[in-house]
Amino acid sequence: MKSAFLKKAGEIAVEDVPRPECPPGMVLINVKEVGICGSDLHYFNDGRIGDHVVTAPHVLGHEASGVIAEVGTKVKGFRVGDRVCIEPGVPCMSCDFCRQGRYNLCPDVHFTGAPPYNGMFCDFLVHDPRFVYRIPDRVSFTQAALAEPLSVAHNAIGKARLVPGETALILGAGPIGFSCIEMARVAGAAKVISSEPLAFRRAVALKVGADQAVDPSSGQLPQIVREITDGRMCECVFEASGAESAIADAIHCVRPGGRVVYIGMGKAVVGVPHAELLKREATISGIYRYVNDFGPVIGLLGAGKLDAEAWVSHRFELDRIREAMALANDPSKNKLKVMVTT
Amino acid sequence: MKSAFLKKAGEIAVEDVPRPECPPGMVLINVKEVGICGSDLHYFNDGRIGDHVVTAPHVLGHEASGVIAEVGTKVKGFRVGDRVCIEPGVPCMSCDFCRQGRYNLCPDVHFTGAPPYNGMFCDFLVHDPRFVYRIPDRVSFTQAALAEPLSVAHNAIGKARLVPGETALILGAGPIGFSCIEMARVAGAAKVISSEPLAFRRAVALKVGADQAVDPSSGQLPQIVREITDGRMCECVFEASGAESAIADAIHCVRPGGRVVYIGMGKAVVGVPHAELLKREATISGIYRYVNDFGPVIGLLGAGKLDAEAWVSHRFELDRIREAMALANDPSKNKLKVMVTT
Amino acid sequence: MKSAFLKKAGEIAVEDVPRPECPPGMVLINVKEVGICGSDLHYFNDGRIGDHVVTAPHVLGHEASGVIAEVGTKVKGFRVGDRVCIEPGVPCMSCDFCRQGRYNLCPDVHFTGAPPYNGMFCDFLVHDPRFVYRIPDRVSFTQAALAEPLSVAHNAIGKARLVPGETALILGAGPIGFSCIEMARVAGAAKVISSEPLAFRRAVALKVGADQAVDPSSGQLPQIVREITDGRMCECVFEASGAESAIADAIHCVRPGGRVVYIGMGKAVVGVPHAELLKREATISGIYRYVNDFGPVIGLLGAGKLDAEAWVSHRFELDRIREAMALANDPSKNKLKVMVTT
Amino acid sequence: MKSAFLKKAGEIAVEDVPRPECPPGMVLINVKEVGICGSDLHYFNDGRIGDHVVTAPHVLGHEASGVIAEVGTKVKGFRVGDRVCIEPGVPCMSCDFCRQGRYNLCPDVHFTGAPPYNGMFCDFLVHDPRFVYRIPDRVSFTQAALAEPLSVAHNAIGKARLVPGETALILGAGPIGFSCIEMARVAGAAKVISSEPLAFRRAVALKVGADQAVDPSSGQLPQIVREITDGRMCECVFEASGAESAIADAIHCVRPGGRVVYIGMGKAVVGVPHAELLKREATISGIYRYVNDFGPVIGLLGAGKLDAEAWVSHRFELDRIREAMALANDPSKNKLKVMVTT
Repeated sequence: MKSAFLKKAGEIAVEDVPRPECPPGMVLINVKEVGICGSDLHYFNDGRIGDHVVTAPHVLGHEASGVIAEVGTKVKGFRVGDRVCIEPGVPCMSCDFCRQGRYNLCPDVHFTGAPPYNGMFCDFLVHDPRFVYRIPDRVSFTQAALAEPLSVAHNAIGKARLVPGETALILGAGPIGFSCIEMARVAGAAKVISSEPLAFRRAVALKVGADQAVDPSSGQLPQIVREITDGRMCECVFEASGAESAIADAIHCVRPGGRVVYIGMGKAVVGVPHAELLKREATISGIYRYVNDFGPVIGLLGAGKLDAEAWVSHRFELDRIREAMALANDPSKNKLKVMVTT
Repeated sequence: MKSAFLKKAGEIAVEDVPRPECPPGMVLINVKEVGICGSDLHYFNDGRIGDHVVTAPHVLGHEASGVIAEVGTKVKGFRVGDRVCIEPGVPCMSCDFCRQGRYNLCPDVHFTGAPPYNGMFCDFLVHDPRFVYRIPDRVSFTQAALAEPLSVAHNAIGKARLVPGETALILGAGPIGFSCIEMARVAGAAKVISSEPLAFRRAVALKVGADQAVDPSSGQLPQIVREITDGRMCECVFEASGAESAIADAIHCVRPGGRVVYIGMGKAVVGVPHAELLKREATISGIYRYVNDFGPVIGLLGAGKLDAEAWVSHRFELDRIREAMALANDPSKNKLKVMVTT
Repeated sequence: MKSAFLKKAGEIAVEDVPRPECPPGMVLINVKEVGICGSDLHYFNDGRIGDHVVTAPHVLGHEASGVIAEVGTKVKGFRVGDRVCIEPGVPCMSCDFCRQGRYNLCPDVHFTGAPPYNGMFCDFLVHDPRFVYRIPDRVSFTQAALAEPLSVAHNAIGKARLVPGETALILGAGPIGFSCIEMARVAGAAKVISSEPLAFRRAVALKVGADQAVDPSSGQLPQIVREITDGRMCECVFEASGAESAIADAIHCVRPGGRVVYIGMGKAVVGVPHAELLKREATISGIYRYVNDFGPVIGLLGAGKLDAEAWVSHRFELDRIREAMALANDPSKNKLKVMVTT
Repeated sequence: MKSAFLKKAGEIAVEDVPRPECPPGMVLINVKEVGICGSDLHYFNDGRIGDHVVTAPHVLGHEASGVIAEVGTKVKGFRVGDRVCIEPGVPCMSCDFCRQGRYNLCPDVHFTGAPPYNGMFCDFLVHDPRFVYRIPDRVSFTQAALAEPLSVAHNAIGKARLVPGETALILGAGPIGFSCIEMARVAGAAKVISSEPLAFRRAVALKVGADQAVDPSSGQLPQIVREITDGRMCECVFEASGAESAIADAIHCVRPGGRVVYIGMGKAVVGVPHAELLKREATISGIYRYVNDFGPVIGLLGAGKLDAEAWVSHRFELDRIREAMALANDPSKNKLKVMVTT
């Protein structure tokens, strides 16, 4: 089978390797589509993200769908040919975090695609069936692969406790921002505002459910939001850019008593308007990946309530992953989510 | 102006009375549409609901929209001609319940239309502007009047803490049931199941957002729901009928760890499957009217996300309220919400 | 080693059996103390609880503490000689409930002591180390064994979301009731009221933290509570008796907007004041065992904040378990928790 | 009567003024004790706090207890001679925030003691009876005056949703820090850790309920907390100092999935470890004063569960308020709460 190896920072190559065996208790998946995530690009460009250092050769990729190719002994609930999507992180299911239903915080998680664990840019993959989900016929492999970023947004919407009729502001219109826009719409926000400096992204934001898309480049986002909302500001704010100014704007734009959800990871230390946070008695939730979110996301995809394909701009065969990475890296190109197909 | 007086149980008459003055701090509203609620029928038929006894002559009606006809001194935020809907209950805003944001539990609430307070089946009405809401142009007077039952559903959806992707079951397909179906859809339920014995009501349930509408008459609702949901049952159950069997079925149909919301008031004492409640570790919330729900409901109506007109079946001029009541009372007729217009 | 076998309903015998091996990944525990629970008595007397039927010979007992006697290979965090308490239920840690942090709802739980799984009335026991907890030196084996009922109360207090300064009512003063009284006191209730028909139990209720202990036998508990609370009633009500009258009284005694926690399992179907539940907009939580509660309970025992020994009335060596059962069964005796020591 | 007027920044003088009349619907209170709060010192020293500028002459003081001297017409529930404490902020009770039970966010609050509203350093005071609370005999006037800072802590403990058995860290050991230490103990924390650079304050922290009091001056607080907690860190962290380092440490010290409550107001913009917040998926709540907290605090004082007198260090008659302010301002003096008596 083929697998794309990161040889060193900036260099990726597709090679032929033996197809893995399917051990007892596991499933073997024939990968169909994989999204390129911002963290894949970080590893590709820098060879590391913080303390996570790639030991080359390493296989990236953690947003994938596929078809069950083999079912290990003792596995129930799957048959060869089942169309599936894959939750990349497999936690220990023994520690306190796992026991408390917060397995995304498990310190011993085996996260497929993050070093030292090889990822999904390959033809076949062994995975724990507890973190593999059958998908309905109407859900495409693209949609299923993008259940991963949608699950981040589903985690965020749960933390935001958005009640139908509220106003939501989403800062940043990349794949996570689009996912949050869609999720806020699905959760019944009466008004969804997208803030994003790039015009072509704002156009997509409107397409996937934002009622208004504004440009924060003037540095006046709080005033803009104040006008749009008749002074009420926003009950729920989702920060999906990681930009320092957006992290601060999130607090300036939240309605007193409202909720800010921080998703985008930026600088280690960020300046925030602390006194405003207190005066507004706002609640802030940090988001780390997802936890028990793939199931509901697949339900929503199956019901036709979400559409991730709307923010896919390019597709490349696995053989051309070098081109895919180059494109995804190129700031001069108008691209959204780039998919790799196998 | 005209006003419809309940003379004694079963007898209602429209009479000419002086138009009320608008006192300082209040607004005078020219009523446009009023819905007939089940509680209006109870008062009409029996002259009482529990301890609330009508002292005739009494004006019923508490689901209304209209136009501002006069603005009392010291009132801000309203102008003559504003299109509005009315929240009927005006609480004391001083007691512990009011201070804690649960003003629907205020023991001193002035509830327009419930004895001893006259209601809205009339041409003009004085109301506290804090409980009057301007409505967007696109919201019809019918929709605005029905913000009242929709607000009950909004209260319920908040208590249910429905997360996008969950399955909701609504027991009973009358106006409150329809409101809950719409609200569950708006809140992002991946599947909405309606349970209702009458076929013509099930058809409307499907029209307003139910994915499936089932007949519970067999007494086998839990088994039916088990099949529909592949054994998962429902994370959120809304009981909007008040029927004893439905109150019990609600617990049998909720997924372990799920939430049951009881809205329909039935018999004083009802038999419930207590051991099942414990084994499922379910949460039950009782609902009493609404609290801070009109604002978000109007936002949702303005955004075109709710449609109460879909379950309006008849309209009568105020002069013909006797016919309206007779129809609403007649079990042989296929009627949904009956509106009175002025 | 010795083990107490239920031979048939009403007949229990201590026999010598081989000491179990300690498999890889498990620990072997030398049992020190075991409490007799109401469910043990049900199995002893009737040979069944609902669908759970004893296949004799069966070992009962699920409230135990002990000392680590052997540590299986691959087990970390335990050494021979560690003093421990045991959480009896071992869930699958794979199903949706386990993944969501609600492992007490796991349909495949291996619950030690409930048929078909043998329990703890024996000298040595193999258990999954994830559900074994080391205890501080200051915590006695008795206290540690009774971490089990205390964990039920800890689960209940979490569901009740008791805020310091509120009033708590606990219906029933048996071991679960005492546990709830202690937990309500620890959680900062400004007033704890115990309702219990038996005078000697009311005396213990006062000893473990109730501010007042009242007799509900008159059938006038709501009026009594109204007087004690100056008409406010109780923000939190814990029903720990399973008696039908208490299940109804719980709703009559809760303050509007308050929370009722049902713990005591009684009849399958129980009559409850449904209209009152709605008017009060109360929240009801059913409780099933415990989930992630042993850790905090042991922390509280270690901090000296709980005292389960206060409601232990009798102790018997394992050899005399027949007498222990007889006493625990005898309604004419003033007994509280009966402990079996090995 | 006497009243202490701030003449200009740094100058305060007690003068004789006419005793106020008691208008209808209000009560007149003979003030007994008033605490000097940090915000009083800010106004005294700088003549302003942010946008709130003193227009001299101004009366400071907002932590007070007293005796009812006169009861206005139409007021129920009070008699002359009633011992009371005063909640200083009187909100509009009409805006959305007030209606939602978050009256502390009311933009039109009349906050006694904050310009332009005169405060409580005087003999007699008119106040809205809805925000006056009768106190039990066992509660001293000192304790009652300090219900104000205790209410801040009660607000914080509610936002933290502390569950019995958790570990709490309180940063800063001034009156708000002491209040939080007491409240965390009352709410059932198994371990309460105080962090405070000043040794004499750490001693008081231990006296009022901290299990350990540590010095953060080394800049190694996270490591210290890691050791104390065996690597678990703290489920609940209360930041009550406003110091930038403490605001950052709060996030470093919270257990993943835990809750940080920010109470202390410091610089407008503060650097926080944003990536850590995300990785830990922590929740942050900003606190602004209190809302519906005086009632439960008085209940806890009446039950003897809180003791604010433990952190009162000095008392001055109103005539000597100049000395009181000088002492409270003097960083070379070991003082805690300074009370003014009338």
